[in-house]
Amino acid sequence: MTIDSLSHFFNPQGVLIIGASSNPIKLGYRLARNLTQSGYQGAVYFVNPKGGLLFGQPIYSTVAEVPDPVDLAVVLIPAPFVADAIRACGVRGIRAAMIGSGGFREVGTEGAALEDEVYRVAQQYGIHLIGPNSIGLLDTHLPIDTTFLPPPGPTPGDVAFISHSGAICAAVIDWARGQGYGLSRLVSLGNQVDLSETDILAPIAADPHTRVLALYLEGVKDGRHFVKLARQIVLDKPIIALKVGRFAAGQRAVASHTGALAGIESAYNAAFRRAGVLRAETSEGLFDCARALAWCPLPQGCRVAVLTNAGGPGVTAADALESLGLTLAEFDGETRAALSEVLPPAASLNNPVDMLASASPEQFSDSLRIVLDDPNVDSVMIIYPTPPMFTAGAVAKAVIPVVHNTTKPVVVTVMGERLIQEAVEHLRAARIPEYRFPERAAAALAALVARTEALAFAGAEPVEMDDVRPDVVRSILAASGHSQSSDGFLSFDDAHAVLGAYGIPSLKMQLAHNADQAAAYAQGIGFPVVLKIASPDIPHKSDVGGILLNLGDQAAVRTGFSDVTQRVRSAHAEAAIQGVYVQRMVPAGQEVIVGAVQDPQFDGLVMFGSGGTEVEGLKDVAFALAPLTQIEAEAMLESTWAGRKLKGFRNLPPADRGAVLDTLIRLAQLAADFSSTSSTGVPQIKEVEINPLRVLPIGGGVIAVDVRIRIG
Amino acid sequence: MTIDSLSHFFNPQGVLIIGASSNPIKLGYRLARNLTQSGYQGAVYFVNPKGGLLFGQPIYSTVAEVPDPVDLAVVLIPAPFVADAIRACGVRGIRAAMIGSGGFREVGTEGAALEDEVYRVAQQYGIHLIGPNSIGLLDTHLPIDTTFLPPPGPTPGDVAFISHSGAICAAVIDWARGQGYGLSRLVSLGNQVDLSETDILAPIAADPHTRVLALYLEGVKDGRHFVKLARQIVLDKPIIALKVGRFAAGQRAVASHTGALAGIESAYNAAFRRAGVLRAETSEGLFDCARALAWCPLPQGCRVAVLTNAGGPGVTAADALESLGLTLAEFDGETRAALSEVLPPAASLNNPVDMLASASPEQFSDSLRIVLDDPNVDSVMIIYPTPPMFTAGAVAKAVIPVVHNTTKPVVVTVMGERLIQEAVEHLRAARIPEYRFPERAAAALAALVARTEALAFAGAEPVEMDDVRPDVVRSILAASGHSQSSDGFLSFDDAHAVLGAYGIPSLKMQLAHNADQAAAYAQGIGFPVVLKIASPDIPHKSDVGGILLNLGDQAAVRTGFSDVTQRVRSAHAEAAIQGVYVQRMVPAGQEVIVGAVQDPQFDGLVMFGSGGTEVEGLKDVAFALAPLTQIEAEAMLESTWAGRKLKGFRNLPPADRGAVLDTLIRLAQLAADFSSTSSTGVPQIKEVEINPLRVLPIGGGVIAVDVRIRIG
Repeated sequence: MTIDSLSHFFNPQGVLIIGASSNPIKLGYRLARNLTQSGYQGAVYFVNPKGGLLFGQPIYSTVAEVPDPVDLAVVLIPAPFVADAIRACGVRGIRAAMIGSGGFREVGTEGAALEDEVYRVAQQYGIHLIGPNSIGLLDTHLPIDTTFLPPPGPTPGDVAFISHSGAICAAVIDWARGQGYGLSRLVSLGNQVDLSETDILAPIAADPHTRVLALYLEGVKDGRHFVKLARQIVLDKPIIALKVGRFAAGQRAVASHTGALAGIESAYNAAFRRAGVLRAETSEGLFDCARALAWCPLPQGCRVAVLTNAGGPGVTAADALESLGLTLAEFDGETRAALSEVLPPAASLNNPVDMLASASPEQFSDSLRIVLDDPNVDSVMIIYPTPPMFTAGAVAKAVIPVVHNTTKPVVVTVMGERLIQEAVEHLRAARIPEYRFPERAAAALAALVARTEALAFAGAEPVEMDDVRPDVVRSILAASGHSQSSDGFLSFDDAHAVLGAYGIPSLKMQLAHNADQAAAYAQGIGFPVVLKIASPDIPHKSDVGGILLNLGDQAAVRTGFSDVTQRVRSAHAEAAIQGVYVQRMVPAGQEVIVGAVQDPQFDGLVMFGSGGTEVEGLKDVAFALAPLTQIEAEAMLESTWAGRKLKGFRNLPPADRGAVLDTLIRLAQLAADFSSTSSTGVPQIKEVEINPLRVLPIGGGVIAVDVRIRIG
Repeated sequence: MTIDSLSHFFNPQGVLIIGASSNPIKLGYRLARNLTQSGYQGAVYFVNPKGGLLFGQPIYSTVAEVPDPVDLAVVLIPAPFVADAIRACGVRGIRAAMIGSGGFREVGTEGAALEDEVYRVAQQYGIHLIGPNSIGLLDTHLPIDTTFLPPPGPTPGDVAFISHSGAICAAVIDWARGQGYGLSRLVSLGNQVDLSETDILAPIAADPHTRVLALYLEGVKDGRHFVKLARQIVLDKPIIALKVGRFAAGQRAVASHTGALAGIESAYNAAFRRAGVLRAETSEGLFDCARALAWCPLPQGCRVAVLTNAGGPGVTAADALESLGLTLAEFDGETRAALSEVLPPAASLNNPVDMLASASPEQFSDSLRIVLDDPNVDSVMIIYPTPPMFTAGAVAKAVIPVVHNTTKPVVVTVMGERLIQEAVEHLRAARIPEYRFPERAAAALAALVARTEALAFAGAEPVEMDDVRPDVVRSILAASGHSQSSDGFLSFDDAHAVLGAYGIPSLKMQLAHNADQAAAYAQGIGFPVVLKIASPDIPHKSDVGGILLNLGDQAAVRTGFSDVTQRVRSAHAEAAIQGVYVQRMVPAGQEVIVGAVQDPQFDGLVMFGSGGTEVEGLKDVAFALAPLTQIEAEAMLESTWAGRKLKGFRNLPPADRGAVLDTLIRLAQLAADFSSTSSTGVPQIKEVEINPLRVLPIGGGVIAVDVRIRIG
């Protein structure tokens, strides 16, 4: 899919409306009206078997009659007739069609059959389709409007909106128009029989008028492709998405903590993070943040100065900033001295700066200049209700030149409604994001910080360990038919061999079939030892008393052998017991869980967090896409308590954090090398879970104490 | 403080403006103009030494000259003259004054001195004050407007707004006017030299036009009084507060996990929960939720039906609802059957109900009636962008009678801006809350559910155990001078005796001064035993190796004694070591932390959560005010993983949950009985921490394994 092959949608020489109507209550009339009145400079043609005149133009009876130039068809006729219309377009040489008609897949199986037929015909003629069931697309700069919604459309702007929901497009167009929120382009994707959200990204990003891509997504059609493409685009232009369907049912068939916790949402979050796509929390947040991303330079860090003419709004802003992970900048002495020269003695010179209700427009601009000069300030939020003795507009006019003269982002909260209209208009014209309440301005600043981080994430390349042995794993997987259990688990030895092939140290152990053998093995390994039941049917061994620790001599090992086997037998009479593993007791250390699972959309997903038996209760875990970049591995540690405490906490000595990062990267590489798309000829590695991974003090490395690998 | 004594503020017979000015650029002019034009029916008088005429009325030179009736003075003159003006009011017999002037405590020490003088004079004459530095107050129903802000004020409504920030009042008045958001009363509290937020609650709640009290709070002046009063009021009318200053510095001097985690925010959250005061997350959320609380009946539960004409908005709504803890109702078969009769075949009859873009106003109202009739539905969100073939207003008109005819709450999301104005006006006039985006409507429904819960919390009475022995604790505390350590910790024996007096079982132990004594005690107690260093200077014993577990014979106890003392000595050379405690090893069980700390504003604050050494890292804790109600104790367990797993989890058997609740209630009673306000004559109990509290299987009870009590 190249941008070129899609240019007919966004820059057509001529547009043909199939289903144009001269009856004003019909959508076909409204569509023709919008296109005609949109200011579109290319040719506009109408087709309707009834013929006639519309807006002074002839209505052609057939597509064949329509003269050149025409390279985009907009189809708005009943579903059963659409395939024929697309065929006529194909014959006529048109290679792009937007289908507005509904009555397809969204209404059931009959509609789905019609949709399949439309797609078949389009494929036959090499026609690209947007829709069906699309509300249309518009470009405010070209301009062009192929929607049938009540005019006028939104004002020209810098944010493109791409949506899986036509209804939300309709609402956004009306809302944007009312709010004075400019858009560059809008695309309603409809049923995506051909072009999907991912196909549309590149052509929209190539639009010079679009500075930010704002997406309403109900999912993505091809996760791997989306991540790959989005990663490239975000290096140039920000993408921010409202991904809905968070709570959609989507339980996987899983057998591990990792699998149970790796919901669809975890996968999307990990994918967006890898791709550098920002995630909006709410509909309003999507547009609030998109505007800041379009208009503001990026901050170097998260230290914000708040400049206000009143205490209350300052405190509200500080709360909102801190709750989003931003911090209030600490001014240096020079800044306070400079502020004291322009502000009255009662003003608060600490952050938030309260300039008092008497603050004049000059005091606003002088103070803004001063805090922007402070090297400890990365961004500024100005926040004010209309000052009692000045107008909000005068303040706006005073600060605009200062904002235009800095490389740091400045957002403005102008509180109120009627008294601030002039200020709002000045700020918008100057491309300075303005909000009514400090919480929303804070979210916009947080999006700018997130964008800085997203660039680092999207720009990083996965770490590739060159001492891994996929060939060894491949032969283990190829031979696994006879050694895996019925539900796909690799045998203990195979699982350890797989880890070994990827350089992840695991605990050596020997399988004893009776108590004497266990005692003999223990003598060889050296005391103290651990006994662990060997059964592919027991997923969580400690749950059923299948693990015994710290056995100091041969007698204890003998007794332990029969205790363990008896306990497991009484708990799981049906379980096949292969014997008992004898294992050296490893030195004390912190314990974490690391795991990997294959996501149907995004392939390997790696998990890190607090392990043990309560993983699913504590939910102190983080996910990332495989293979891992160094920055992502670090972020997984920083976002969990299990990871933060590796640096040491109270009586816990600092642990070998580096070895944990190394293990995560190796595990991710394993998951990526044997995913559904990469593991050709051998079974894929569906789940890996190391629980616990014992982390020894610095320099001591890590040891996988227990591991389970499911293949399939 | 009675409502009666404050009636002059809210229903004065006559109002006097001291500082009225005939110069239109002065605030004293604007104030006079607002009051004159507000429609106020009582007498209005002006005072200014310059005299003259204003709005056809004479300006009196002195307060003394002003005729009857006058019972409220509004003062807007420079700060240094205010005390004299208040004195003149006192002499004239005026007992209520609102001081709009600034230049007092907010500008520094000189201002504070002026403010103290004003208060002294007011006290002398029995005058109640609002302010100084207040923007004024207004009542849209009486009506009266004593602000100096640009007219017109807000439209009459059902929500009263009480604010610590005058700037936010000014912004809210302008915003409310622009948004068509009605208010009943508004009070700017200013510096609160006399009347505070708490004093104002009852008179506002007594206003028949006020259905909901919305507060902007930067703190409360007297926490105990606020909780007591608010608890009474919320049983009648909802209070919702935006409490800011969440991240204000406020580290306590603490020596326990409980103290470290019990920040000011935990205290406010606990206090609001006890009082049944709802907490808004954002400024917009405050007003969004207040309107729903004013207009909607309360739901019986959290099961929401979503009714929409499009898929996308339905999914967005479902996400927002679930993320707030609400659930999508599962319809019964009858509901689906009835819906299938009024909707086309392609409509989705599951929740969210997608009636399709073609949905008519009648289909909206019929479907609404059907889902309201389902016993599994507690509330409904209607959500629609303007339907292509109908107007948004027609839909609004169709659903209004259905909403008026149900006892279940219904909120409406009308998406868009210009095309929906008629719908918005109809809905507002019908007192049906409407929002532009589903996330905000979802938050409003969540507030209704929270209100139902808040009523239960506010209505519950604390549990009082009658087998507790405060007399015993009192004598321990009275005698504690010689037994407590320098930093206020009770001796081990005293601490255990305090728990015993309140019926909390703790682990018996004996203090051994040498290894032989320890071995002998252990023999008497029975093996296995635990050794634990006895030192008031070591807050967290396991951090320094001060605890040894599972010692099986006398020899192990002897070695253990010297190991433990040596380790502690090398870690804390300066620590006073009294010896080593010998303790029976208790049966296995789950372990939790319970603690209590005194809050300067709200007295006893009880904590429950995941214990051990990582309490502060995991932060799996909940707080509540002491003494505890049964419902609060239950909520503490339900809101933490430590509490939820008491019901059993995987290999963890169900634990004695009832004994934990009992312990929490007893601990809270202890904290309440010996708080700063209740412990007269003896030191207060500043901190109690039981970590761990071992919870045995059901019927086994609990045992405080380690406890520390700090007094002072």
